[in-house]
Amino acid sequence: MAGAGEDVQALIDLMARLPGLGPRSARRAVLHLLKKRGQLMRPLAQSMAEVADRVRPCINCGNIGTEELCAICQSEKRTTGEICVVEDVADLWAMERGGAFRGRYHVLGGTLSALDAVGPEDLRIPHLMDRIAADGVTEVILALNATVDGQTTAHYIADQLQGRDVTVTSLAQGVPIGGELDYLDDGTIGAALRARKQI
Amino acid sequence: MAGAGEDVQALIDLMARLPGLGPRSARRAVLHLLKKRGQLMRPLAQSMAEVADRVRPCINCGNIGTEELCAICQSEKRTTGEICVVEDVADLWAMERGGAFRGRYHVLGGTLSALDAVGPEDLRIPHLMDRIAADGVTEVILALNATVDGQTTAHYIADQLQGRDVTVTSLAQGVPIGGELDYLDDGTIGAALRARKQI
Repeated sequence: MAGAGEDVQALIDLMARLPGLGPRSARRAVLHLLKKRGQLMRPLAQSMAEVADRVRPCINCGNIGTEELCAICQSEKRTTGEICVVEDVADLWAMERGGAFRGRYHVLGGTLSALDAVGPEDLRIPHLMDRIAADGVTEVILALNATVDGQTTAHYIADQLQGRDVTVTSLAQGVPIGGELDYLDDGTIGAALRARKQI
Repeated sequence: MAGAGEDVQALIDLMARLPGLGPRSARRAVLHLLKKRGQLMRPLAQSMAEVADRVRPCINCGNIGTEELCAICQSEKRTTGEICVVEDVADLWAMERGGAFRGRYHVLGGTLSALDAVGPEDLRIPHLMDRIAADGVTEVILALNATVDGQTTAHYIADQLQGRDVTVTSLAQGVPIGGELDYLDDGTIGAALRARKQI
């Protein structure tokens, strides 16, 4: 684009590659950055460079952090008997925001997919099996997305764990807290009905 | 937020201060950056740091660039007889995207505002007057926003230029290209009718 200068345009183009930003909103974001150079632009550039240099996957669970073991795997307050299996780091963060789980995680890094040729060894599933054997794990909670690939992966892991001395559970399905029946899809209502509880 | 680590969380917080991004989308953007560390995150951090260091306002027109004079003020292809007055750099870029104007610009850096106590000397208006006197300018195009403050500013500048040997014009108001009458506000339709042209 004329007028902006080459390096400003290059910055806009890079910003536009972020999810949720297009060319227009990237331009707006860069103008905002230029107005707040000291307060926002320099700290953001520095923070981004530092995180890019220092961040690494946890060798135990696959969560991201700045040390070999992530904060959750290091914490002595977390129980070691329960492992919550999630697809990716975003799901781990979502579980942590929920605040209900006090065990540790295992990030698969995706789901099994015949179409994309993703097999168990691409997904840290062998490492999960090793952890379950070594750590004295009593329960594996499969917190995978309720998609076809997510559920396929959950079934595969449950199959692999059959015969081992470990409880395998999955997240309950039903009506979301605050959800209105009228706005829910039929599948969710059906699942909630089948899993109904006596009160 | 637990789970993300302190520096990653700090990065998310900074990203969330960009216009158009909230806490959720900032998290998504940072996860995307972490996945594309070499391709996107490092280049973006570097580009941002460079632009923050090098960018400066053009001493002539107020556009941003990396040298004393911006690319437009340096270009010998731009006519010097016409100055297009805009509120801010975003408006200058918008005019450049239009591609119809071949003269030079003057960025006011805002509009006159009694409420916010913004006067002419806060807006580079004295500098505009100097440029008009010095550069042999024949036409001043007031491309200010069609807001109350924008139009107040336009009238003020037009008043100041009365008696000087310079034509003062403003952008035409009317139906946008591709615009449907049914979706236009009444003010625009009224302005378009008053400014009707014989065909």
